[in-house]
Amino acid sequence: MNISALQKERAKYQPKLPKSLQGSAKLVEGEKTKSVANQKEIEELFPNTYGMPLIAFEKGEEQKSNSPVNIGVILSGGQAPGGHNVISGIFDGIKRINPESKLYGFLGGPGGLVDHVYVELTAKKIDEYRNTGGFDIIGSGRTKLEEEWQFDKGLEIAKDLDLNALVIIGGDDSNTNACVLAEYYLKKNAGVQVIGCPKTIDGDLKNEMIETSFGFDTATKVYSELIGNIQRDANSAKKYWHFIKLMGRSASHIGLECALKTQPNITLISEEVAEKKQTLGEIVDYMASVVAQRADNGDNFGVALIPEGLIEFVPEMKKLISELNDLLAEGTETGKEFKMLKKSHRREWVASQLSPDAANLFQSLPSGIANQLTLDRDPHGNVQVSLIETEKLLGEMVKTRLAEMKEEGKFSGKFNTQYHFFGYEGRCAAPSNFDADYCYSLGATASVLVSEGKTGYMASVRNLTAPAEEWIAGGVPVTMMMNMERRHGHMKPVIQKALVELDGAPFKYFVTKRGEWALGTHYIYPGPIQYFGPSEICDLPTQTLKLEQA
Amino acid sequence: MNISALQKERAKYQPKLPKSLQGSAKLVEGEKTKSVANQKEIEELFPNTYGMPLIAFEKGEEQKSNSPVNIGVILSGGQAPGGHNVISGIFDGIKRINPESKLYGFLGGPGGLVDHVYVELTAKKIDEYRNTGGFDIIGSGRTKLEEEWQFDKGLEIAKDLDLNALVIIGGDDSNTNACVLAEYYLKKNAGVQVIGCPKTIDGDLKNEMIETSFGFDTATKVYSELIGNIQRDANSAKKYWHFIKLMGRSASHIGLECALKTQPNITLISEEVAEKKQTLGEIVDYMASVVAQRADNGDNFGVALIPEGLIEFVPEMKKLISELNDLLAEGTETGKEFKMLKKSHRREWVASQLSPDAANLFQSLPSGIANQLTLDRDPHGNVQVSLIETEKLLGEMVKTRLAEMKEEGKFSGKFNTQYHFFGYEGRCAAPSNFDADYCYSLGATASVLVSEGKTGYMASVRNLTAPAEEWIAGGVPVTMMMNMERRHGHMKPVIQKALVELDGAPFKYFVTKRGEWALGTHYIYPGPIQYFGPSEICDLPTQTLKLEQA
Repeated sequence: MNISALQKERAKYQPKLPKSLQGSAKLVEGEKTKSVANQKEIEELFPNTYGMPLIAFEKGEEQKSNSPVNIGVILSGGQAPGGHNVISGIFDGIKRINPESKLYGFLGGPGGLVDHVYVELTAKKIDEYRNTGGFDIIGSGRTKLEEEWQFDKGLEIAKDLDLNALVIIGGDDSNTNACVLAEYYLKKNAGVQVIGCPKTIDGDLKNEMIETSFGFDTATKVYSELIGNIQRDANSAKKYWHFIKLMGRSASHIGLECALKTQPNITLISEEVAEKKQTLGEIVDYMASVVAQRADNGDNFGVALIPEGLIEFVPEMKKLISELNDLLAEGTETGKEFKMLKKSHRREWVASQLSPDAANLFQSLPSGIANQLTLDRDPHGNVQVSLIETEKLLGEMVKTRLAEMKEEGKFSGKFNTQYHFFGYEGRCAAPSNFDADYCYSLGATASVLVSEGKTGYMASVRNLTAPAEEWIAGGVPVTMMMNMERRHGHMKPVIQKALVELDGAPFKYFVTKRGEWALGTHYIYPGPIQYFGPSEICDLPTQTLKLEQA
Repeated sequence: MNISALQKERAKYQPKLPKSLQGSAKLVEGEKTKSVANQKEIEELFPNTYGMPLIAFEKGEEQKSNSPVNIGVILSGGQAPGGHNVISGIFDGIKRINPESKLYGFLGGPGGLVDHVYVELTAKKIDEYRNTGGFDIIGSGRTKLEEEWQFDKGLEIAKDLDLNALVIIGGDDSNTNACVLAEYYLKKNAGVQVIGCPKTIDGDLKNEMIETSFGFDTATKVYSELIGNIQRDANSAKKYWHFIKLMGRSASHIGLECALKTQPNITLISEEVAEKKQTLGEIVDYMASVVAQRADNGDNFGVALIPEGLIEFVPEMKKLISELNDLLAEGTETGKEFKMLKKSHRREWVASQLSPDAANLFQSLPSGIANQLTLDRDPHGNVQVSLIETEKLLGEMVKTRLAEMKEEGKFSGKFNTQYHFFGYEGRCAAPSNFDADYCYSLGATASVLVSEGKTGYMASVRNLTAPAEEWIAGGVPVTMMMNMERRHGHMKPVIQKALVELDGAPFKYFVTKRGEWALGTHYIYPGPIQYFGPSEICDLPTQTLKLEQA
C-alpha cells in the first residue's frame, strides 16, 4: 500500500491515556441513576438495564490475571474522525487484559452482524489503521438494529465466535439501539454484553457524562481551516460574500464551534431561529442589514456560516414542507393531479392548494428552490430537505432584499456571492491529537467495561479540557440519557438529542461578540491541524468545551 | 489583533535562503538571451530590454557598502499563498543592503500605483504578516498596466517617493506588463527599474528558468488534503461518486499535481482533451466506463477530478460557445429576437439557429446547463464560462449514459454523486515551508536585482528539488519568455503560457498509472500541511517538480 509521508509518520503516534487506563483499572460505582425524563416509562421498557450506577475508573493496584475478552465491534452511521482509534483502543485494551483475547469487526455496519459478515482484526491490520481517518477498516452502514429477529441473528454469530460483547460505535440512535439490544440479551440471559461509544461529528450526542462525541473536534478543525482560508481570501480580494453551509442537520454545534474558532461576520444558529420563531424573511433581513452596514464602511465582502439543517428549524418552512408532503404524497389524488400538470403551471397550482401563509412563503421563494421543493422528492413523495441548497436560497433572497434596499436608498454597495458546502471534507480526516487520544481512551474504556461484565453502558471519558492524564474514564448507563419522544408517529425511548443551548456558555459568548464580528473584520485563521508542533497548537480542545468548562 | 495559536507560532519561522543570498550576492552574467519565438518582433518592441543576459547569483566575498534601495511593491491579480513572504523577503533584503532603504506598498493592486494610494511598510507591519497567507497586507487588484498615461502617473509617484524600482508580483500578464513598463521607463530614461515575481496557483507561468510559480505548492497541498479526506469517505461509505472541480481555467497543472498526490479514479486533463479533439460524449463515455467497471467489481464509489477550464478545451464546446456568443450578442437582431421569446420556446429556437453539429450538442446538454449557456451572460452578451458547473454537467451526462448502459445490460451498479469545487479554499492558505522559503528567496532576489540596477528582469530561483541552501537565485530577462499571440484581435507580445505538456514527465507518469488507479482503489491521503514535523513531511516539493527534475 502506497501511503503518504504524513500517514507513515503519524502511524507512530502513541495516543495519550488517562492515568486510570495506563495500568489495570479499578472500578468505582456511584449512585444508582435514573433517566433524564419519563422515568416510569423508561424503567418499564428497560427492567434489566435501568437504574444501574455510574462507573468511574481509578488507577488499580496490581495487574490482575484476567480471562480473555472477545469482542465484536460495529461502526454505525456516518463517518467521524477517530473511529479507527476506538478500534485500536479496544484491541490494545483486550490484549492487555489477556493476550488471548480476540477482536472481530462486523463489516459494513450493523448489517454485518445480522448477515454474519466479519473479519478478525489482527495486530497487523490494526497497525495499518492507527491514527488514520475514515471507517474503511471494516466499513460502516445505516442498517438499524431494531427488530428481535436481527437481535437473534446477532446472537447466533456472537455465540459462534464466543463473543463476550458487542461494542457499537455510533450516534444517539445507534446507542439507543445498543441499549435495547443489551436489555434483550439480558432478558434472554444470552450472556452477550453490549457497550456503546459516542460518535458523531454533529456534536449532538452530549450531556453531563458525555462531554463531547468523538470526531467533532477534528471535523470542526478541518472546516475552520477552510473557513479561515476563505476569510483571508475575502479580506484580500474584497469583492465576495462567501456563504458557507456546514454539515449537520439536527443541531448547530458545528456552526457555533466554527464561528468561535474563526469569527466570521454572520453565523446562523438553527436553535435560536426556532426559539425566536423567526421567519425566512427575518433571517434574510438580518443578513441583508449586515451586508449593507459593512458596505457603508466600504467593505463589500464577508463570510456567513449557515447550518445545513436551518430550513427545518424555521417554523413557517417546516409548515410549508409538511403541507407539501401531504399535498404531493405518492398515491394521493393531489399528488396525481400535480404530476399531470404542465411544468409551467405547477407552481401556481401548488400555491393555490396551500394554506394562505404557506402559499405566500412558497411564492416568495426563488424559482430554483420552489422547483426543488416540488420536484426533488423521495420515493414516498417527501421533500428531500437535504437537497435544498440553503446557502443559495439565502444568497438569492438577500440579493433580492438588497435590490429593494437600494431602491429605498438604504444600500449603496455591491453584493457578489460565492457558495460552499463543507461536510465530506471533514468526516474522514485523520484525527487530531485530541480525537486520537479521546477515541483510543474510549476504546480502552470499552474493553475494561466488557472485561468487568458490564452491559447497557456507554463508554465515557470526561474532564476533557485537562491534560489526557487527568481525564476521567468510566461508564454511563445508556438509560440515564433517555427520554420518550415521538418518532415516525410512535412514542419511543431515545437518547435525548443535545441541541445548542441558548443559555449555555458557548452561545452566550457568541452573542456578546457577534455584533463586533459582523461589522468589523476580526477573522481568525486557524490553519491546518498540526500533529508535531508545540502542545498549545496540537492539543487544543474545542472552544465549545473550553467555554463550557471555564 | 486576535490571532490563532498556529499563526502565533508560525510567525517565528525563519525562511530558508539559498547560500548566495545569505551574505552579499555576487552577480554572474550569462550569455545574451533571445525570446522563445518571434525574435524579430519582440526585439523591435523591446529595443532596450531585449537580449539581456541571464543572471545567476553566487556567494559574494565581502559585505559591500551600498546605497539605500527604495522599492514600491505591487500585488497583481488573484491571491496565491506566499505573497506576504515575497514582500518580507524584499524588506529584509533591502534593509540588509542598507538599513536606510524603504519599502512602499501600493494598495489594491496596480491601480494603487496609478492612483497614488500607498503605505510605507515598516518592520512592525511586516512582522505581522510573515509566513501568513493572503494578500491583505496591501491588497491586490486586476487593473492592467497597459497605457502610457498609467505609466506616467506611476512615474510621478515613483519620483515623489524617490523609488529606485517597482516590484510587480503577478502572473504571466502582469509580468508581461512589467516588462513593457521597464522598457518604457528605459526609453524615457526615467531612472525607475521594474522587476517581476512569478505568482500563480495555476502553475502556468513556468519554463526552464522559472521552475514553478509561487503558491502552486501550497494550493495543491490544500486541495489534496481535501481530496484525500473525500477519498477516505468514499472508500468508507462506499456509496458516492465525488465529482471534484478544481480551480484554474487556463491549464490543468493543479488537477495533474493533485492526481499525482492522491491517485483518484478519474482525472481529466484539458490539454489532452484538446490534443485528442475529444467530444463531450467521448469524455462522458470514458467516465461512464470507469464507473461501470468499478461497479462490476462491487465498488459503487469513486472520485473524479475535473479542471475548471475543461469546457473551453473541448473543441465542439468551444465552437458552440462561440456560436452562442455571436447569436445572442447584445444589440444584434438575433439577440433581440431571443429576448422576446417565451422561456419555454427559447431552447428550440436557439437550436434552430445553430450549425447542425452545435445544435446537436446543444440539444444533448442537460436543461440546467443549456439554460446557463443562454441565460447567464455577461454585459456583452457572452456566455460566462466560469459559471458553468462543469462537474454537474458531467455528472448528469454520465448518469444519463449509465441509464442507457443499464438498458443494454452493460451496467448493473448504482451511481450517486456528490459535487465539490475547490478554489478559494487554497488561494490564501498560509504558505507551506516550500512556498514560505521560495517566496522569501524571490523577494530577496528582487532586492539584489534592484540594488544592482537591473530592470526588465523576473526574479528566478531554481534547482528547487534540492535543499534551499543549494537553490540557484538570479534574474531572467522577461523578453526571453515572450512570443507574439493574438489577444482580443491584436497580436501582442506576451509571456508564453505553460500548459501541461503531454510529453512531459508528470503527464507521462500519470498515463502509465491511471488505468490502475481507475479500477483499483489506490487512494493516497496526504493530510494537512505540516509546519513543525520531520523534513520529509514539511519540506516536500510538488510531484510535478520531482518528476520533471528526476
